[in-house]
Amino acid sequence: MISPWTTEIPESYERLMRGFGIRSFSELLDRIPEPNHLMRRGIIFGHRDFERVLDAMLNDRDYAVMTGLMPSGPMHLGHKMVIDELIWFQRRGAEIFLCVADVEAHVMRGLSYEQIRKLAVDQYLSNYLALGLDLDKCHVYFQSESEDVKNLALTLGTRVNFSELRAIYGFGADSKASHIFYPLIDAADILHPQLPKFGGPRPVVVPVGIDQDPHLRLARDLASRLGYVPPSSTYHKLMRGLLGEKMSSSNPETAILLQDSPESVERKIWKAFTGGQPTAREQREKGGDPSKCVVFELMAYHLLEDDRELARLAEACRSGQIVCGECKRRVIHLTNRLLEELTLKRKRYLERAREYLKSVRP
Amino acid sequence: MISPWTTEIPESYERLMRGFGIRSFSELLDRIPEPNHLMRRGIIFGHRDFERVLDAMLNDRDYAVMTGLMPSGPMHLGHKMVIDELIWFQRRGAEIFLCVADVEAHVMRGLSYEQIRKLAVDQYLSNYLALGLDLDKCHVYFQSESEDVKNLALTLGTRVNFSELRAIYGFGADSKASHIFYPLIDAADILHPQLPKFGGPRPVVVPVGIDQDPHLRLARDLASRLGYVPPSSTYHKLMRGLLGEKMSSSNPETAILLQDSPESVERKIWKAFTGGQPTAREQREKGGDPSKCVVFELMAYHLLEDDRELARLAEACRSGQIVCGECKRRVIHLTNRLLEELTLKRKRYLERAREYLKSVRP
Repeated sequence: MISPWTTEIPESYERLMRGFGIRSFSELLDRIPEPNHLMRRGIIFGHRDFERVLDAMLNDRDYAVMTGLMPSGPMHLGHKMVIDELIWFQRRGAEIFLCVADVEAHVMRGLSYEQIRKLAVDQYLSNYLALGLDLDKCHVYFQSESEDVKNLALTLGTRVNFSELRAIYGFGADSKASHIFYPLIDAADILHPQLPKFGGPRPVVVPVGIDQDPHLRLARDLASRLGYVPPSSTYHKLMRGLLGEKMSSSNPETAILLQDSPESVERKIWKAFTGGQPTAREQREKGGDPSKCVVFELMAYHLLEDDRELARLAEACRSGQIVCGECKRRVIHLTNRLLEELTLKRKRYLERAREYLKSVRP
Repeated sequence: MISPWTTEIPESYERLMRGFGIRSFSELLDRIPEPNHLMRRGIIFGHRDFERVLDAMLNDRDYAVMTGLMPSGPMHLGHKMVIDELIWFQRRGAEIFLCVADVEAHVMRGLSYEQIRKLAVDQYLSNYLALGLDLDKCHVYFQSESEDVKNLALTLGTRVNFSELRAIYGFGADSKASHIFYPLIDAADILHPQLPKFGGPRPVVVPVGIDQDPHLRLARDLASRLGYVPPSSTYHKLMRGLLGEKMSSSNPETAILLQDSPESVERKIWKAFTGGQPTAREQREKGGDPSKCVVFELMAYHLLEDDRELARLAEACRSGQIVCGECKRRVIHLTNRLLEELTLKRKRYLERAREYLKSVRP
């Protein structure tokens, strides 16, 4: 509990946790070797059965990490959290399965496979490399190319009926056949690292945003029906959008895109919603509320590695020592430094990601 | 109209034809080059848009034939009709797509993929070779191995909703997800010969039993929504079972299996339902009714190539010149001769079918 940040789990998350039996991640924090900033700050706030994975990790037993990316738009900072978590797992020698959810992007968003492949390489895989994930050590696959996943989905789908899917996803008479079936592909993504060809049943953890939990519940349910180890999961908070709403790749003004120019970053952050007072004078008198501030969120999630520095910033905000303008200038500077570095690396890695893509076959 | 057989389309078929706009195959018979016995005798009794395929065939334009086999049990004579039709198409240089519906056998019947592959080779592909189909000239593929088919199914499934599928297949809240989705795989099987990699939109004919028409209706509907040529179809009658009911691979006593021993054939045919009178004496006096006789059906569908010989047999039955015992002895003899020949060839082709299997990749 280094910064006040760690204690703050919004009521909506608490409700989800109670309702669905998600446990608090902070309970495990003492046992976790060198937890990363997302763990230390409670941004990764919840889990299911993560002990199982932690035990395997601490005792050098076999386990895997499963994650996915859906290339339906440009990559933004909200996507970076999972990569930071993957890099943490990879440093501990984890076997990582990385699914490019091209079927999802095609079926659920109507993109062509050509568009999707371009986005996957230009926006995601090259950025993953730039952020420091070693893709050569991951099992990267495209759903559209994985017989394993699609065939497993068809097998899993013999064990779930329409009313169960309706209860989880709200399907109705006008739901499209492929939308109804898609959750089985997602469940198959999650369970396929336990297929005999990948080593059979074993702990697998899926790092997700809390909004992905329905997929986890379905996969866990199917796992216990079919002799797989129910997958574990960690849950990170969803970054709010810059205007105070949910960050979204479909509205570029709500998110810092990894491809944003310095001018875009500056414009977006100047417009961002903060926890400050209406005027600098009021801010000096009453202080601000960093827990409501999306600018502070950028600091906590991505820009300040040092917990004490983050705590000092929160305190300076609350006490009125600094005002939003100063803070925003600093965030603009740090964000642009981060993006500039990423852009350089991404350019270096782009050809690599494209080449790599060609060699990927499930 | 060579034998009385050709005129006989049961009321139930007439109703289906009227209800769903299936046209009479006999209308086209004059234009068809060297029609086979199933065509001449009205066993292939209906079609949709077969003119389109016939025109392509007669004018040396591109077209394809699409068919499938579901390896869920032993092959019986009822399965042979489609092979006879395929051989006829193959002699006319048709490009044939042959789908081994292993996903269907797994999802709908619960067989393991190992069981299915064994059945596919031992019961079907080896018999297809033995019957004279040149598999080397067909595109043989397993659904479980075809990315093309599964990905096309997922695309097609974005254009059909649950209520449409419910209307065609009667799905409900307790229908399994993979059962709901399976018709899209079937539609994708039917449409995939029109994918760009196979040459793009063109006439495709699917020879089926009348019970398969729902799949055709769905595929035709999707074709017109998505810019494919609506697939044509031919419909053959379903052989009745030996006891007068539907022939079924799940009850081996109702069908002549291609692997039946001479003793089994003898036993089954002696027990078979006929159109004869209760006693030989009554038969001599009143004559029998070949149109009700499953033994005559075996003659017409499989055992007598010569139409005049078949017509003579029908007449001899109706006039009481022959009794059921004589006729059954002849059918037993002819069936066993056919199966003996098939068994010899099948043994020769079994290794071939297995080898061939290994090389099959979509």
